[in-house]
Amino acid sequence: MSKPKFHGVFPYLVSPVNDDGSVKREVLTELVDHLIAKGVHGLAPLGSTGEFAYLSLAQRYAIVETVVQAARGRVPVVAGVASTTSRDAAEQARHMAALGVDGILAIMEAYFPINDDGVEAYFSGIARAVDLPVVLYTNPQFQRSDLTLPVVRRLAEIENVRYIKDASTNTGRLLSILNACEGKLDVFAASSHIPASVMLIGGVGWMAGPACLIPTQSVKLYELAKAGNWSEAIALQRDLWRINEVFARHGLAACIKGGLELQGFAVGAPIAPQAPLPDLAREEVRVALERVDGI
Amino acid sequence: MSKPKFHGVFPYLVSPVNDDGSVKREVLTELVDHLIAKGVHGLAPLGSTGEFAYLSLAQRYAIVETVVQAARGRVPVVAGVASTTSRDAAEQARHMAALGVDGILAIMEAYFPINDDGVEAYFSGIARAVDLPVVLYTNPQFQRSDLTLPVVRRLAEIENVRYIKDASTNTGRLLSILNACEGKLDVFAASSHIPASVMLIGGVGWMAGPACLIPTQSVKLYELAKAGNWSEAIALQRDLWRINEVFARHGLAACIKGGLELQGFAVGAPIAPQAPLPDLAREEVRVALERVDGI
Amino acid sequence: MSKPKFHGVFPYLVSPVNDDGSVKREVLTELVDHLIAKGVHGLAPLGSTGEFAYLSLAQRYAIVETVVQAARGRVPVVAGVASTTSRDAAEQARHMAALGVDGILAIMEAYFPINDDGVEAYFSGIARAVDLPVVLYTNPQFQRSDLTLPVVRRLAEIENVRYIKDASTNTGRLLSILNACEGKLDVFAASSHIPASVMLIGGVGWMAGPACLIPTQSVKLYELAKAGNWSEAIALQRDLWRINEVFARHGLAACIKGGLELQGFAVGAPIAPQAPLPDLAREEVRVALERVDGI
Amino acid sequence: MSKPKFHGVFPYLVSPVNDDGSVKREVLTELVDHLIAKGVHGLAPLGSTGEFAYLSLAQRYAIVETVVQAARGRVPVVAGVASTTSRDAAEQARHMAALGVDGILAIMEAYFPINDDGVEAYFSGIARAVDLPVVLYTNPQFQRSDLTLPVVRRLAEIENVRYIKDASTNTGRLLSILNACEGKLDVFAASSHIPASVMLIGGVGWMAGPACLIPTQSVKLYELAKAGNWSEAIALQRDLWRINEVFARHGLAACIKGGLELQGFAVGAPIAPQAPLPDLAREEVRVALERVDGI
Repeated sequence: MSKPKFHGVFPYLVSPVNDDGSVKREVLTELVDHLIAKGVHGLAPLGSTGEFAYLSLAQRYAIVETVVQAARGRVPVVAGVASTTSRDAAEQARHMAALGVDGILAIMEAYFPINDDGVEAYFSGIARAVDLPVVLYTNPQFQRSDLTLPVVRRLAEIENVRYIKDASTNTGRLLSILNACEGKLDVFAASSHIPASVMLIGGVGWMAGPACLIPTQSVKLYELAKAGNWSEAIALQRDLWRINEVFARHGLAACIKGGLELQGFAVGAPIAPQAPLPDLAREEVRVALERVDGI
Repeated sequence: MSKPKFHGVFPYLVSPVNDDGSVKREVLTELVDHLIAKGVHGLAPLGSTGEFAYLSLAQRYAIVETVVQAARGRVPVVAGVASTTSRDAAEQARHMAALGVDGILAIMEAYFPINDDGVEAYFSGIARAVDLPVVLYTNPQFQRSDLTLPVVRRLAEIENVRYIKDASTNTGRLLSILNACEGKLDVFAASSHIPASVMLIGGVGWMAGPACLIPTQSVKLYELAKAGNWSEAIALQRDLWRINEVFARHGLAACIKGGLELQGFAVGAPIAPQAPLPDLAREEVRVALERVDGI
Repeated sequence: MSKPKFHGVFPYLVSPVNDDGSVKREVLTELVDHLIAKGVHGLAPLGSTGEFAYLSLAQRYAIVETVVQAARGRVPVVAGVASTTSRDAAEQARHMAALGVDGILAIMEAYFPINDDGVEAYFSGIARAVDLPVVLYTNPQFQRSDLTLPVVRRLAEIENVRYIKDASTNTGRLLSILNACEGKLDVFAASSHIPASVMLIGGVGWMAGPACLIPTQSVKLYELAKAGNWSEAIALQRDLWRINEVFARHGLAACIKGGLELQGFAVGAPIAPQAPLPDLAREEVRVALERVDGI
Repeated sequence: MSKPKFHGVFPYLVSPVNDDGSVKREVLTELVDHLIAKGVHGLAPLGSTGEFAYLSLAQRYAIVETVVQAARGRVPVVAGVASTTSRDAAEQARHMAALGVDGILAIMEAYFPINDDGVEAYFSGIARAVDLPVVLYTNPQFQRSDLTLPVVRRLAEIENVRYIKDASTNTGRLLSILNACEGKLDVFAASSHIPASVMLIGGVGWMAGPACLIPTQSVKLYELAKAGNWSEAIALQRDLWRINEVFARHGLAACIKGGLELQGFAVGAPIAPQAPLPDLAREEVRVALERVDGI
């Protein structure tokens, strides 16, 4: 674990799959090369944008294998592990480690409500299963479980639990986590937060789907914030936020896949029965991208 | 499809699995024999109580195979098919048909919101995949999607979509479905509804976890309601409802598994990180069962 | 308190007011006479349908005074008392008693969440303020507080807390209340429940807005259920339920006021900024009423 | 309207009332003098913290009259106007103007859902009723209505609608409002947002309950942010945020009143049936205040 800490812009990669369920390995490789060339600091396959909830284990492993091979160690790869059961999650994590990822993005799915002890057991089980840094991920908007502050604080005591990515819209919660877990957890923003605001309060970067579409601009924003050049950072942030607004209206996976298609990456549509991006929304995405020279 | 229509009491079977993930086939076989001996009208593996959301496909198929073999055609087996994607759901349905089930309980899982067209496509895809009667299942309490009345009405036009099981707590919605789909869909109650009330308004039975624990009493309630003996039906219903109240407080899978353990069936605990039934709750279940001669 | 117990059909009266805020006393009197002539068992001004949340105290008292004078003791009048504070609620209750009402419908409004002790204190304060029977009213759909079963059970120990009207959609909760408070609380259904179902499990009637529009049919349904003639009751119930479906789509106050206008009662529109019933919805209401000879 | 624009720290004043409902005018006057002496930029009676939802109109007017007289024009007073009806809201606004306030904080209460046209009509009606600047206020956590972005944009076209205070936890929404209404609406943060973050993205200050307890520190934070001294601003912000965390756990009105009591202001308890601050919570408030020299 002497590697440098994760920081900066980690695009949440989309998962391009054919109708027969096979992974579009060439397209995904091409996207990885493109994003690394634009300067992103890492790659995060199998987040929400990566439609993990719509993929079999075999598809998930094929995607991560492709991304690891395409990245060739140039940037760290942090892969999503998501399950409803502790046993399956630990197995996924071990498999991801064997595929060569640099970190685990730990996601908990739930059907029945789970108490705090169960939530803690789930995440600590993932951490114990691998000798890799773990990013806690919580997205109360789409997941049927959430990480309470006491659970976050207890998990932060585990040596390889080193990061948290909170995809609520509540930026104040991030500051509470920073106040409670300083020096133990680094905080990444999500596309539901304003990245510059999270950097201001002490965040180390963001993991987000829109960075697939605007990697150059995202890296620039990160560098401005990192340098404390807040006036330029905010001017850029306000332009980039219009992208997030469009995505919030039309659904993340559909928008990112639709936008990448506009940019020439044949990533296809979201997995059915999710709807492809409607024509009018595609135009909104186009306009939003053109405004920030993203197309 | 000249077989008799599904009706009566279908216990939602629990899914007994060992810590290594293997299915406890003997215990499940024993439970199936017991329930059939007590007169239940059918069996429903892989409902919510059956922890479908916590099982791999291999585990799900092993459970359904065990139930079909144990039932030996004495009562119909209606197996749960649950997925986030149309492709996987249709594959599951075909596999279940090959295993010899008599009907499909169709369940939709979701992560991102799905529009009505997507919901309709998902369920109609399952119906097209098999030559078996399909039971639509919606449980807005735990699932991140719901069936609107217009979608239910359109799905009811498909020949083998023949039943609906609504696990909301809103009994009025069942009457609206009956009003809208009379003669096309038969309605089953869930444990969140009062079965006698649903029978009164025209339902044909119920699919519910508690019937695993009180099969005799459930069948008796069904027969009283069916015979229009409402005063005796309600007297029994009020006693049985106390069971549901206990279950609502402590979680369905944990309670049914805990209660079956009390009755001598070694079904084990819910799958981790779900918590086993706490001691105090186990006592509440014991008291509730004793009150209705269920133990 | 030797008077007969409340039972049967209590229409939730609308509150007809002019643009200047004055109460349309003639219209309200005419409506009261009409409903009593049709056989309703009581009258309930200032429920949700009565737009209590949109009326000043002076308006509320003017409405109750009008209803009491119009009823002339022919049927009991149970008036809504609704507030956020214990002090104001008790004052309202005393004022209603002075106006001559026969019972209090106790409603709790909230802005910040209130704990169970606070909820109990609020309702018990109303009960202590008057020497009249009190109907507990809870409507979790529109109110920012709810009555938990333990609080209901404690309030049921107060001598003049004699009834509960639950306007959730969860009919099972009513059975739990009946199981817990038998002999202490009588249960009334609301328009969100199927009245016949609630009668089946032991309810004593219903308090609901739609009975303003279909008093004759409502009374007939009550009598069929009361007589245990369940097959005829359900046949009628299914027709009447279509009315509730229309109302659920378009908003209760707007629909009842719109329907009464169609029947010739000049009750006006809901209080602004609530919208009047749109033309298309008015046609739906007309069709639903014609179907049950309600117009 | 040539007066300077509202900006900076506006404490949401508590509403101290005796058990008989009379306003504690001396205490409130003393608090106003204290806050002005500490440098706050304005005063906001009758916000959420001011328990507007628990006060009669007579009490509200007595409070605003007291605040205006105590402020003696030293800082602007922006008073809350809150109602469910357009007519009552406009009357309240005119009455507040006659009492001498400098601006209206416009709040919409609702019982039944209100469509966008109704929401717009409500707020525009308040704006038309007075010749004073209006602050739109939305708090989706406690109010049963919300301001959508299209409605905000349309209201921003009204000349005297000049500010918005959003008390959601979604800071990204503030940036969307700023992007959409630049130059027309100034944005104030609430206690649910991190004030420094909102200042960073272009906000002009905050209206919040905690500023009653930590006026000096709040003003210092404002000045640091205003000067672009972000590193010092964030260091102070992180300490002050601990206050907000305590308040989020125990309820705003109870905490601010409890904290003011600790500071020697005899403001009393929240209005019943709201609970007074429990002893343990009082200690948490004391510790949080001591940490920032607030006591």
